[in-house]
Amino acid sequence: MLKEAVYHRPKDNFAYMYDQDTLHILIQTKKDDLKSVSLIYGDPYDWKEEKWQADSKPMRRSGSTDLHDYWFAEIKPPFHRLRYGFRCKSEEEVCYFTEGGFFDSMPNDIANYFCFPYLHAVDLLSSPSWVKDTVWYQIFPERFANGDAALNPPDTLAWGSAKPTPENFFGGDFQGVIDHLDYLVELGVNGIYFTPVFTAYSNHKYDTIDYMQIDPQFGDKKAFRRLVDACHKRGIRVMLDAVFNHSGYYFPPFQDVLTHQEKSRYKDWFHLWEYPVTTEKYPNYDTFGFVGSMPKLNTSNPEVKNYLLQTAKYWVEEFNIDGWRLDVANEVDHSFWREFRQAVKSIKPDVYILGEIWHDAMPWLRGDQFDAVMNYPFTNKAIDFFAKQEITAPEFAEAITKVLHMYPANVNETAFNLLDSHDTPRIATLAGGNKNKIRLLYLFQLSFIGTPCLYYGDEIGMTGGHDPGCRACMEWDEDKQDQQLLSFVHSLIGLRKNEPLFGNHADFRFLETPNDKCVVYEKSDKTGRLLFFLNNSSNGTLLTSSKFANKTDSVEWCLS
Amino acid sequence: MLKEAVYHRPKDNFAYMYDQDTLHILIQTKKDDLKSVSLIYGDPYDWKEEKWQADSKPMRRSGSTDLHDYWFAEIKPPFHRLRYGFRCKSEEEVCYFTEGGFFDSMPNDIANYFCFPYLHAVDLLSSPSWVKDTVWYQIFPERFANGDAALNPPDTLAWGSAKPTPENFFGGDFQGVIDHLDYLVELGVNGIYFTPVFTAYSNHKYDTIDYMQIDPQFGDKKAFRRLVDACHKRGIRVMLDAVFNHSGYYFPPFQDVLTHQEKSRYKDWFHLWEYPVTTEKYPNYDTFGFVGSMPKLNTSNPEVKNYLLQTAKYWVEEFNIDGWRLDVANEVDHSFWREFRQAVKSIKPDVYILGEIWHDAMPWLRGDQFDAVMNYPFTNKAIDFFAKQEITAPEFAEAITKVLHMYPANVNETAFNLLDSHDTPRIATLAGGNKNKIRLLYLFQLSFIGTPCLYYGDEIGMTGGHDPGCRACMEWDEDKQDQQLLSFVHSLIGLRKNEPLFGNHADFRFLETPNDKCVVYEKSDKTGRLLFFLNNSSNGTLLTSSKFANKTDSVEWCLS
Repeated sequence: MLKEAVYHRPKDNFAYMYDQDTLHILIQTKKDDLKSVSLIYGDPYDWKEEKWQADSKPMRRSGSTDLHDYWFAEIKPPFHRLRYGFRCKSEEEVCYFTEGGFFDSMPNDIANYFCFPYLHAVDLLSSPSWVKDTVWYQIFPERFANGDAALNPPDTLAWGSAKPTPENFFGGDFQGVIDHLDYLVELGVNGIYFTPVFTAYSNHKYDTIDYMQIDPQFGDKKAFRRLVDACHKRGIRVMLDAVFNHSGYYFPPFQDVLTHQEKSRYKDWFHLWEYPVTTEKYPNYDTFGFVGSMPKLNTSNPEVKNYLLQTAKYWVEEFNIDGWRLDVANEVDHSFWREFRQAVKSIKPDVYILGEIWHDAMPWLRGDQFDAVMNYPFTNKAIDFFAKQEITAPEFAEAITKVLHMYPANVNETAFNLLDSHDTPRIATLAGGNKNKIRLLYLFQLSFIGTPCLYYGDEIGMTGGHDPGCRACMEWDEDKQDQQLLSFVHSLIGLRKNEPLFGNHADFRFLETPNDKCVVYEKSDKTGRLLFFLNNSSNGTLLTSSKFANKTDSVEWCLS
Repeated sequence: MLKEAVYHRPKDNFAYMYDQDTLHILIQTKKDDLKSVSLIYGDPYDWKEEKWQADSKPMRRSGSTDLHDYWFAEIKPPFHRLRYGFRCKSEEEVCYFTEGGFFDSMPNDIANYFCFPYLHAVDLLSSPSWVKDTVWYQIFPERFANGDAALNPPDTLAWGSAKPTPENFFGGDFQGVIDHLDYLVELGVNGIYFTPVFTAYSNHKYDTIDYMQIDPQFGDKKAFRRLVDACHKRGIRVMLDAVFNHSGYYFPPFQDVLTHQEKSRYKDWFHLWEYPVTTEKYPNYDTFGFVGSMPKLNTSNPEVKNYLLQTAKYWVEEFNIDGWRLDVANEVDHSFWREFRQAVKSIKPDVYILGEIWHDAMPWLRGDQFDAVMNYPFTNKAIDFFAKQEITAPEFAEAITKVLHMYPANVNETAFNLLDSHDTPRIATLAGGNKNKIRLLYLFQLSFIGTPCLYYGDEIGMTGGHDPGCRACMEWDEDKQDQQLLSFVHSLIGLRKNEPLFGNHADFRFLETPNDKCVVYEKSDKTGRLLFFLNNSSNGTLLTSSKFANKTDSVEWCLS
């Protein structure tokens, strides 16, 4: 047995509350090394005749990556307390793995065992229940639709008349969104994530000037209220973008610093290195990246914290928004986010808190900060396999299995699964225009665990490279929209909504990768299962289900 | 290379802020598998010509357990941000380990690398600076000294006239402690940890009746104030015991529940399963263990939370205590402890918060909850090796190395290192009366990283088995005290205080285990080093330093 590869540590993805009575416990072992693993467990205080009263339960192999197997068990401790260890069986030996290390026989000293001391409902990571059934649509407001020409900023270009650049404007606004809500309803989305809408300088609005005002090119607060109400009336939730890591250059407190320097009452709102504060040649203050026009906010300053938390509460309280997506969330302190969660959930307990974190985000997903993060590890692997064909089917299956084992199931079920965004090239471009690849991407995304997000225009085949290319004006001319793709996406969303096994209410696991281009996976629950055969090649061999399905009660359905 | 054994995940003990500018980064590999490891690192936004600007730095092997090696590097990222990976070199191969897995050559796509997004001072685990130089002394107030007979509870026995039982009383009180403070000063301790002092039913006082009152057998608030002031005058800090997991049976809110049942306004203060609430045959409510007289408090009820937090603040604010030791801390919810930290630190920022957790306590030591925990993993291994001789010297060295690598260095430096307590047999009993073993235990404890605690009476050789045996009356008859041991402990505390290398201001590492009974370790810093040769056998072979020490500038000192 390769003991060096065995890993378990309580909490995080290895031992966590799934609900207030249920623990999920997992252990990592070397791939294909163990024949079986059992969970040894009991209440820490349950002793008879100086012997701890432990029980045992087989664990199931929940998935494998390139190097490791993961084993899983679910348990409901009657007194909400648990001590536990693992009985590991390989071809040659049996041993017991505990916090105290490995033993040849089951240790009686309870100090050796792992501990989950108590299941407290208040510590449970509990996302809003509506999120699990939400299909998101991401809108970059400047580029979705121009519904009120009177609001056009200076030098606004005719809709779609030019390529998007970092500086040009096309006049997208809230009225434009309202005008097209029926399109979104018809498509089946029931959540919109808006990139920033507050007063800012640029077309992307990530350089905030006033967190309490709607950017005049999009409308005013009345228009925003109309928009939110119109969405809610149609069963669509609204999520805004909170850019709290940094402000824009024209944020008045930063302007005050530039003007009054060390005499500015806002000098502690930022991370200034020296005086005079200058943006030339390099900024001498902390910034987002090295971008002088985005000075980093000092979120541990109580004044700044108070200002931003008031902002966060204001848009929830006054406009009833349903979620906050947190920009550059990983570079803001954990303390701030803990207070942020308390603040917004105190106003509206079922607000969704979504962090922008591209890497492993476990430290933000322990119940005290975010509900979910943008699942870029999912994105990257889906793109690498389906669009770019840079990894093989087994590599893809192992990588996705790894993604699923990085976090608790609670996190996976509300993970924000995107295929692209305003920060990446569009899928049509990544797939080299290959419609079949795009269809497979959507099929995989929309049948996967989590809460999927479509980037505006992808569903009609819009192309575009990296920012600013991916931020083109939405194509509203139906003749220029890929109606077949739109119809396909519409069908998938329908399946996701109407078939619980297809949607977010079933377990996911890979069954096989018959060759380098094909993956077979299932979605299952107690009521049954769906089998998926995805062939990412131009070789038309039809994958058959004979190996997996019980023919007598199965129905085949082929999307070709 | 055994890739399956390689482990790293940012935060916790693998990547953490040591101070507001410094990161410590560690990686686990299979024991004796790698020849070298280098840290590959850079600012995430530092790119030139589409190439990430990464640097590299050798890591040093900081220790080995039975299965693994740990490699360590310290780094000060100039912009407080870091992306990083590891270059791993074995006899046969070189590869790169990142969040994205293993690569044969260094990946250019930064998405693969591990991320420590930003070093925020506010997220730093920062214990009070005074703790590092504190030698604690634990007092069980009922059994330390009876200084005011007028306070004796009914049926108080003459001091030391009987063996301790779960029910008997000897009249220990605050005046008794005050009377013997000079003894403690002379011994060299500068912190006292008192087990509970609030009104309670039992002699141990862990079954609180009134959290806002001093138990009348110990004195009143005036006496407590005199005690704290007398301690502070002598440079001794005072830590009290907060029993917030459960109350006592006679806690008025619980009595109210028993009387008024579902009509009690306190019914949500506990975790009741059904009515009528009864303690017979088994309690039908959550308890500490299965002890009906210790009903578990509902610490997520805002009323209970408010009551307990007011209590916690009260004793700090009104009596200027210096620390809270948190009883059964692991079974109280994390949310409560986060608020607890905010509450007490808002009153006195340098209060020490010490959790009673016997197992791996990483989830409580992330900067948002405790400063430290009672280091029972250290205790157990020290006892197993020095007192019981149940493990060999290599096993001991590996186990202690594992303990040191479980937590960030910040945690280790203020870990509460005890050899025994009111909850365990005394060291003299565990060592079977062997004075040399006791001396080695003290030598190891007092030269180790962390903040050591002596259990009252151990220093004069008192014996006693498990609770209640370990709770005997302090022996004040000097003829019955082991003066040699007392003098030895006194010397060690003196060395710890006067020699920074001996104390808590140097790095610790094992150098060798020449045989199953002997360990060699060093304490070192930039100024020099101390070598320790501990021989835990009756075989008098003197271990020599020739292999390790530079004879020309070394001085040998032998405690025999």
